[in-house]
Amino acid sequence: MELTVFSPSGVVPDGQALQLALARLRELGFDARRDKAALARRQRFAGSDEQRLAAIHRVADEAPAVAMATRGGYGLTRLIDAIAWKKLGKSVERGTRWVGLSDFTALQLGLLAHTGQPSWAGPCALEGFGRAPEAGGMDDVTAACFAEAMRGELEAVGFRTEIGFDGVEVRGTLWGSNLAMLCSLLGTRHFPAVRGGVLFVEDVNEHPYRVERMLLQLLQAGVLAAQKAVVLGQFDAWTPSPWDRGYGLKAMVAHLRSRTRVPILTGLPFGHVPTKVTLPIGQRVTLAVQGQQAFIAWA
Amino acid sequence: MELTVFSPSGVVPDGQALQLALARLRELGFDARRDKAALARRQRFAGSDEQRLAAIHRVADEAPAVAMATRGGYGLTRLIDAIAWKKLGKSVERGTRWVGLSDFTALQLGLLAHTGQPSWAGPCALEGFGRAPEAGGMDDVTAACFAEAMRGELEAVGFRTEIGFDGVEVRGTLWGSNLAMLCSLLGTRHFPAVRGGVLFVEDVNEHPYRVERMLLQLLQAGVLAAQKAVVLGQFDAWTPSPWDRGYGLKAMVAHLRSRTRVPILTGLPFGHVPTKVTLPIGQRVTLAVQGQQAFIAWA
Repeated sequence: MELTVFSPSGVVPDGQALQLALARLRELGFDARRDKAALARRQRFAGSDEQRLAAIHRVADEAPAVAMATRGGYGLTRLIDAIAWKKLGKSVERGTRWVGLSDFTALQLGLLAHTGQPSWAGPCALEGFGRAPEAGGMDDVTAACFAEAMRGELEAVGFRTEIGFDGVEVRGTLWGSNLAMLCSLLGTRHFPAVRGGVLFVEDVNEHPYRVERMLLQLLQAGVLAAQKAVVLGQFDAWTPSPWDRGYGLKAMVAHLRSRTRVPILTGLPFGHVPTKVTLPIGQRVTLAVQGQQAFIAWA
Repeated sequence: MELTVFSPSGVVPDGQALQLALARLRELGFDARRDKAALARRQRFAGSDEQRLAAIHRVADEAPAVAMATRGGYGLTRLIDAIAWKKLGKSVERGTRWVGLSDFTALQLGLLAHTGQPSWAGPCALEGFGRAPEAGGMDDVTAACFAEAMRGELEAVGFRTEIGFDGVEVRGTLWGSNLAMLCSLLGTRHFPAVRGGVLFVEDVNEHPYRVERMLLQLLQAGVLAAQKAVVLGQFDAWTPSPWDRGYGLKAMVAHLRSRTRVPILTGLPFGHVPTKVTLPIGQRVTLAVQGQQAFIAWA
């Protein structure tokens, strides 16, 4: 199964880490290679805008079974006005699964908005497979879930959610994933108009008040009310303020729930954390809760 | 000239600083008082949502000559769906000048979107007038500019901009000011549809790549192309990354200029900095540049 890693966003700071990621992906059974510009550099970017755009189009033309971003960072916002979406859509028709998260959300939601084609929210090469053992190594659950999803063997993921949602069962298009990137597309032609969907979001380094502001923007833009459910992934690495005085993620979620009737579930193992599931963006799923056990199934 | 300070957003951590601000505002000739809920507290907010909303409406009903926010922080996003905009618009007709910045941008742009009424981008009470001498004290330029603007004596501000804009002269509605807050309204009914305007923006604690992402969102949403000029204020207190490698504010502005024909000026002394001008939001202005000297005039 051919897998190409490429760099649409931030610079790859460490080529050795990418080599390690490729080696591990090969151990998992993938015929892994890196795009020729994967290590390009310009300022904080993995090459000039032209180089990164060319890499995206080159990978789309080659249409490997898996097209995985080396990392997130920042960079796709510069490119989305110039991406040949039809070319990317065609690669999906030929079988390519585009995988990544964080900044990569811009490509995934643009693909969904412009072509309706699905992609996969999952690990990027560096953070998912390139960590040295002394830096935490590779997470086996993440790796196994990703590999199964790519082979078409994964049909559902389960997670423990809060009490109060027993019996919830909805069907709709699954979409997400990075909240800041999703909000950065609001008001633009790259934002997908998903009605009756299941929206999942995550973020990193964002204080809960900023997460709340983004989710309220989605509320005020009419996006939340158009969904059948919202599923919160992991929001980590934020710095509390001395003035929070009891305000945190729980208070944020409580406020949000007071503002909408759409069920807002928590606990999805997805985000900027080592252990995460791989999920299809733009595919119809069933979200069901039994007790505190939630399932997202796309079989 | 009656001036009421009130708290629509974050908690006032230090009541003494607010007393100092009121004393200084009195020295500047204002009949300054604080709204009865200005020191209310709930979590990180200056009271519950109901308390802060009531404070806004109470101040609007009282219609003092100046209605000044104690501080920014976060909180207006929770309230903007419930603000009685007509009531606020009426207060402006009765002569009230609403003043603040940062989080207050949500109120100011909502007011403009829903009523077309102007307000003032200027200092909040605490950071503008409440700093103890050992913490930097009060900035005399900021204070003088604010007082003149409130008395109707200020008709223009000048600042030094980059070379390359000599001869620029445009007329349009001035609007802004906090970039993150402005973008947080995109896609919602609170975003004002200003065509042919002069847009000024500032922010704090945002890395240039995040500033760029927000400005590109405005570009991709068609907002920038609808303006006659964009004026960048101060973007400070951000932390460089070891991977920036030459990417910073200058590179960000250069990229933005490569993407639009709208003139993008820099150098406006406005933002989360001690020395700042006071500017009318929602009023027609002339922006003119002679050499490197720029003027914004609303006479």
